[in-house]
Amino acid sequence: MTATVTAQRYDTISFLSDYGTRDEFVGIVKCVIADIAPQARVIDLTHEVPPFDVRAGSLALARCISYVPTGIVLAVVDPGVGTERRGVAISVGGGRGILIGPDNGLLSMGTALAGGAESAVVLNNPEFQLAAPGATFAGRDVFAPAAAHLCNGVPLSELGDPVDPNLLLPGVVPLSRVEHDGVVAEITWVDRFGNCQLNVGPEEVASFGSVLSVAWNTAMGERSTRSATVVGNFSAIGGGVGLVVDSFGMLAIAVDRGSAAEQLSIGVGDAVTLSALSDESVLTTNVQLRRGPSST
Amino acid sequence: MTATVTAQRYDTISFLSDYGTRDEFVGIVKCVIADIAPQARVIDLTHEVPPFDVRAGSLALARCISYVPTGIVLAVVDPGVGTERRGVAISVGGGRGILIGPDNGLLSMGTALAGGAESAVVLNNPEFQLAAPGATFAGRDVFAPAAAHLCNGVPLSELGDPVDPNLLLPGVVPLSRVEHDGVVAEITWVDRFGNCQLNVGPEEVASFGSVLSVAWNTAMGERSTRSATVVGNFSAIGGGVGLVVDSFGMLAIAVDRGSAAEQLSIGVGDAVTLSALSDESVLTTNVQLRRGPSST
Amino acid sequence: MTATVTAQRYDTISFLSDYGTRDEFVGIVKCVIADIAPQARVIDLTHEVPPFDVRAGSLALARCISYVPTGIVLAVVDPGVGTERRGVAISVGGGRGILIGPDNGLLSMGTALAGGAESAVVLNNPEFQLAAPGATFAGRDVFAPAAAHLCNGVPLSELGDPVDPNLLLPGVVPLSRVEHDGVVAEITWVDRFGNCQLNVGPEEVASFGSVLSVAWNTAMGERSTRSATVVGNFSAIGGGVGLVVDSFGMLAIAVDRGSAAEQLSIGVGDAVTLSALSDESVLTTNVQLRRGPSST
Repeated sequence: MTATVTAQRYDTISFLSDYGTRDEFVGIVKCVIADIAPQARVIDLTHEVPPFDVRAGSLALARCISYVPTGIVLAVVDPGVGTERRGVAISVGGGRGILIGPDNGLLSMGTALAGGAESAVVLNNPEFQLAAPGATFAGRDVFAPAAAHLCNGVPLSELGDPVDPNLLLPGVVPLSRVEHDGVVAEITWVDRFGNCQLNVGPEEVASFGSVLSVAWNTAMGERSTRSATVVGNFSAIGGGVGLVVDSFGMLAIAVDRGSAAEQLSIGVGDAVTLSALSDESVLTTNVQLRRGPSST
Repeated sequence: MTATVTAQRYDTISFLSDYGTRDEFVGIVKCVIADIAPQARVIDLTHEVPPFDVRAGSLALARCISYVPTGIVLAVVDPGVGTERRGVAISVGGGRGILIGPDNGLLSMGTALAGGAESAVVLNNPEFQLAAPGATFAGRDVFAPAAAHLCNGVPLSELGDPVDPNLLLPGVVPLSRVEHDGVVAEITWVDRFGNCQLNVGPEEVASFGSVLSVAWNTAMGERSTRSATVVGNFSAIGGGVGLVVDSFGMLAIAVDRGSAAEQLSIGVGDAVTLSALSDESVLTTNVQLRRGPSST
Repeated sequence: MTATVTAQRYDTISFLSDYGTRDEFVGIVKCVIADIAPQARVIDLTHEVPPFDVRAGSLALARCISYVPTGIVLAVVDPGVGTERRGVAISVGGGRGILIGPDNGLLSMGTALAGGAESAVVLNNPEFQLAAPGATFAGRDVFAPAAAHLCNGVPLSELGDPVDPNLLLPGVVPLSRVEHDGVVAEITWVDRFGNCQLNVGPEEVASFGSVLSVAWNTAMGERSTRSATVVGNFSAIGGGVGLVVDSFGMLAIAVDRGSAAEQLSIGVGDAVTLSALSDESVLTTNVQLRRGPSST
């Protein structure tokens, strides 16, 4: 007869961090979760976000978010741990998901891609935290307990004071820009294979044709240019450099069965200009691509 | 009263790849599985197969296969992803196991060690795949969904068109060969500890005695020779080089509490000749093993 | 009516090793567990203990032990595998926990921190082991089966002959010592972020004030000194070197958003002297902290 508000139950915690696996940080977080909510399942997204690199973590989370199952996302890249920076839990998707982590921009892109924050709390209720001998491991003492208690049915509102979602720290989204007759992109991610993802999709450069000019500044300050064909898989690149439409629908500078990052000496954060191929740039590219005894 | 054919239910997916863990590839594959078949368990065999190295992946899978529980094996080392190379699912052991992955030789040794392929399908039914913004992540879009749907009871035959198991791409199995009075072996695997597994078992060299000559060509093109005793554990090696009967029953070049690969500058793919110890080779070995001020 | 002794059931196996994840060792151990006790859950503490480093493994286990859930701890750093060194299972906490691993000191600190060994057995009952083609992988053949069978309700006493817990091999605990007017500590752990944990808690150096002198010998044999403030988080360090009360309540030499180990060229096992700041040491520190063109 009486209306009751039942908190949604969650059973999956998708976990991303810069903890690495060479230490026991990730293991201890899982122990804490298993102790509080033994029925919860933890899926490791990745723990090899470069140390302290909030932006890299937020981009990795953004790439994952549409595949993460209904439930909790636990994300920790937290150089400000122990300071007054806030820990937060953010409800998205009509309560189907809750993102937990530091309020330092790490969660912002993931939250936006999940439809935006609907409500949020600051994790300041000590009842749902572990007492700790030091303040430097919020993943263990604050974030993991919050995730586990949510899996046990504790309502979000119990974890701490509400906070206006509009006041959460936004992340910095790297945007490409049109300049002269080219698109200036940025390498946002170099994966294990050396593929260099750009913040540009194929539709943004479609007017340049199917073979583009790719230009960047080398570490020596000189301009380097290559031609690259837009292709759908790595084998289609052949012997040179390609722009692969990657598994997230973005363009990635790639070579077949090798590391583009190593071969071109480029990396995360580097600016790359994509433009239509002029006669001059074709020439430049051909010369640079020629390899053999005479090039020594 | 009516006879029904019930597909076997699987609940475990043993997962091997060259995805590494520094990116979120493995995490996303697990998210896809958890979304489709939340009840399925995933066991990570390893994800650190060297990038693109189909042979190394097939050997790792071969070493695992007799320990893998009843269920699905998901294996992805797939440099040809997105091309016309086929994705396949192969039934083995009277349906107790199904191997899923690219048809590029990766699955061949594992399949053979599991008793051989009994039936196979090409994974070309889009109903059991994810629509994707790019074609380069078949682990996420094709292989993981196939594994998960099998765990949900979907019959193998639903996943795509049947293919003759005899037409699956065979792998290249490195075989040792007898030459003159020695056995020419190959280093098939260097593990984390620097032990160098050979494609030779102890029975193949038993006639050479318990102390053998081990010879290989150095990077400088010179011949290097050591004596090595066949032993059952690392401590029994003592101060020199040993041939340990490793945990898979193969001989491995090893040193005690150190890396044979580093100390001898040898690695995967190197040819090594095992032979009976002649007087001359004893002399050579003694000289080479002498370390100290006078050896500089 | 009749009194029965029921073995406790365990459902969680917390697993630590030096197996690494680049090979399939960890995966095979999990396969063996899943095959014997499919209902058991495995939590990876870490597998990146440096190869053969029993002390590093025992310290990592000590840092984990108070967070490990009720159940089994499986720990393997085992350079003496296959020799007459014993495999053991040790009951702690009134049977709430059992530690399994080699009797080489690896388990000693964890056992002590869990309240001490109450009973122990040598793992010598072949009925609960796997037959193996080689003796070098006790994790797979001896330890994992023991853990899994305990999860199935097999009593500890079935796994092998009882052994007096007082005769288990003790570990070597690195202790700090007071010398002149300082505390000579040791770096026991360098984590992924480069923080250098000391075997000293803040209470041991409280009498030195809140800003201390930190001194060590460089690789060149010269004495290097820095001042460091005792702080509660990394951001509070500011631009120099700090002594952070870390998440285990120990002091750690740290820098903010960087690696203290790299910047100071220090590492595990190095001796560090903490003392009150004298006028002279302040001067030394200021000079050393000055960086710029004139310091070359």
